[in-house]
Amino acid sequence: MTAPRVAVVGAGIIGLAIGWRLRQRGVDDLVVLDGGEPGAWHVAAGMLAPGGESAFEQPALARLLEESNERWPAFAAELGVDVGFETAGTLGLAMTADDLAEAARHWTRQKLPLLRPSELREREPALSPRVRAGVYAPTERQVDPRKVVAALRDRLADRIVAKRVEDLSEVDADLVVVAAGCGTARLTGLPVRPVKGQLLRLHGEPGLLRHVLTATVDGRRVYLVPRADGEIVVGATQEERTDHLVTAGAAHELLHAALDLVPGLAEAELVETAVGHRPGTPDNAPLLGRLDHRVIVAAGHHRNGVLLAPITAELVAGLVAGIDDPMLADFSPRRF
Amino acid sequence: MTAPRVAVVGAGIIGLAIGWRLRQRGVDDLVVLDGGEPGAWHVAAGMLAPGGESAFEQPALARLLEESNERWPAFAAELGVDVGFETAGTLGLAMTADDLAEAARHWTRQKLPLLRPSELREREPALSPRVRAGVYAPTERQVDPRKVVAALRDRLADRIVAKRVEDLSEVDADLVVVAAGCGTARLTGLPVRPVKGQLLRLHGEPGLLRHVLTATVDGRRVYLVPRADGEIVVGATQEERTDHLVTAGAAHELLHAALDLVPGLAEAELVETAVGHRPGTPDNAPLLGRLDHRVIVAAGHHRNGVLLAPITAELVAGLVAGIDDPMLADFSPRRF
Repeated sequence: MTAPRVAVVGAGIIGLAIGWRLRQRGVDDLVVLDGGEPGAWHVAAGMLAPGGESAFEQPALARLLEESNERWPAFAAELGVDVGFETAGTLGLAMTADDLAEAARHWTRQKLPLLRPSELREREPALSPRVRAGVYAPTERQVDPRKVVAALRDRLADRIVAKRVEDLSEVDADLVVVAAGCGTARLTGLPVRPVKGQLLRLHGEPGLLRHVLTATVDGRRVYLVPRADGEIVVGATQEERTDHLVTAGAAHELLHAALDLVPGLAEAELVETAVGHRPGTPDNAPLLGRLDHRVIVAAGHHRNGVLLAPITAELVAGLVAGIDDPMLADFSPRRF
Repeated sequence: MTAPRVAVVGAGIIGLAIGWRLRQRGVDDLVVLDGGEPGAWHVAAGMLAPGGESAFEQPALARLLEESNERWPAFAAELGVDVGFETAGTLGLAMTADDLAEAARHWTRQKLPLLRPSELREREPALSPRVRAGVYAPTERQVDPRKVVAALRDRLADRIVAKRVEDLSEVDADLVVVAAGCGTARLTGLPVRPVKGQLLRLHGEPGLLRHVLTATVDGRRVYLVPRADGEIVVGATQEERTDHLVTAGAAHELLHAALDLVPGLAEAELVETAVGHRPGTPDNAPLLGRLDHRVIVAAGHHRNGVLLAPITAELVAGLVAGIDDPMLADFSPRRF
C-alpha cells in the first residue's frame, strides 16, 4: 500500500509538528497549508506546565498533558537548534492569605511542599518580601514558541504552501488534517471559539529572574516567563472576546501583578503589548481524531497548544497510518 | 536698512513659531534648519495651563505664561486650520485626603472654589466616585501639538531646510536663533538638560471625557487630555534621565492613576507608549534673549514649550527687529 496524499491545514505549532512527524514516518506526499495569520503560538509564553488548574477535573486531559510533557525534551533535542528549552522549573506563588488559600488546594493535589518566603527568596532573590508562600515545581519547563515554530518551518520548508483554505472541498488530498486553531470552527463547524489573551513582553537585566513564576496576586492569575536574553513574558488575560485590542485595563492588571511580585521590574523596558486568541472548546480539551473518512481534526488546544504539540503530532501521525491509540478515546471531535 | 539674513536652528514648535512670526514681519531672507529629530512637542499633551505649580514661586515666569496663554486663541485662529484648540477648561482633582491637602494650597492661590464630588461628576460623569474634591479652571485650554507643528510647517514649507547643525560657525547668516530644545546645550554650552517624560496614548469612546483632567492620585501627578476623536493622552513622568526606554514602572504608574480617576478607561485601547525629553534649565524657566551680537537663544522651555510658543515667537521677532522687550529681562540666557 502506498502512503496517502496528506494535506495539513494550518501552519501553527500543531500543524507543523504533525507535518514534521508525518515526514519522519515516511509520508512524503505531504503539504502544510499556511493561511498566513499567526496563531496563538505567536504570543504564547511557552510554559510547559502539565499540572494546570483544569487537570484534576479532567483525568484524561491530565494524562495527555503529562505524556506530552515527557516527550518535550526529546522533541526539543530532535529539532537540533536552540528553541529556548529551559528546565529551571517553576515557582508557584501566592501573594495574600486569600491567594494562598486558593492556591494551596491545587498545590496539595500536586503534592508540592509549601515553601516559606525566605526559602522562596533564596531560590528567587528578586521576589517581593510581600509574597506569602509558594511551591517549587521542578518538572515544569519552558520553551520559546516563536523559536519552535521557526525550527519546524525550517524542517518543512519545501512542504509549506501559502494558501488560505476557505472550504475543505478545495483541498486536493486523500487525507486532510485540520489543525487550524480558531479557524477550525469555520472549516468544520466544530465548536472551537476564540479565547482572547493579552500579554506583555518586558526586557530587563538577564538573570533577574531564574524561574518561571506563576502566581495568584489579589485573586488574579499571572505568569512571568523569563528568557535567557532578558525578555520576560507577562501573561495573560482570559477573555471571551474576539477583538484584537490591547486595553488599558489589561495592561494595567498585568503590570500591577508583575511589579507586585518582582518590584525590580519597574526599571525593565516595556517592549511589546500583544493579543492572541486561544482555540477553546466546550470542555477546553482538544479535538483529536477522525471527523469522517477523509478528515482528521487536531485543534482546540486552548491554553495547551505548545505543551501538547509533541503528543498531538504522534497521535495524528498514528491515525494517518491507521493506528487508533486508546488515548484518543476521550478527545473525539464528535463528542459534543 | 535691509532685513538681516536670519537662520533659525531647530524646527520644533518654538523654532517654527519664531520662523512664522519673522516671516509675517517681513523677514523674507530666512531659513529654519530642521535637524530631523522630533522634539518634546512630538509627545507633549498640549495642555495650556498657565497656573502650573511652579508659577507662584516665579512671578516673572507666571506673567510670561499668562501672556502667552492670552495669545493662544488668536495664534490658533491665525493658523487657519484645525489644531485641536479646545476651551472646555480643566478639572483639577485630588483623590485622597493627603492629595487634597497638597492640591488645596495651590488651588487657594489660584482662587478657584472647591467643588464637591457630586459637582465634579455632574461636569464629568465618568469620574470615579473615589475622587475626593476638585476645582474647575475655565481658562485652561488645550491644543494638539502635532497638528500645530504640521500647520506651522505648512506655512513655512519653502523655508525649512533639512540640516543638522553641529556647530553654529557653520551657519551662514547674519543672525542665528537657536531654538534647538535639548540640543541647545551642545550648540551653545548653555545649561539645558533633558528631563525624561513617559506618557501613554489611549483611544476610547469619543466624549467619555469632557475636560482636561489634572490630578494628584496617591501623591502622584497625572494628567488626562482627551481629544475630539477619542484619543486620551495620559502623562507624564518627570525623570532626570537621558534614555529613551518606556519602562514597566512608568506605564504602570500612569495606567494606575488614569484608571483610578476614570474606571471606564479600562476598556480603552492602549495605542501608544512614548518617551520625550523636555529641555530643562537650572530654574526650569526658558532661556530667551541675545547670547552675543550674532546669536539669539530661545530654548529651555521645559514643560511649557507649547504654551510659550506664541509669546516666544513674538519676543524673538521683536529682538530680531531690535526691540528688547522688558519682559525678557528675567530670562536672559546669560543668567546662570
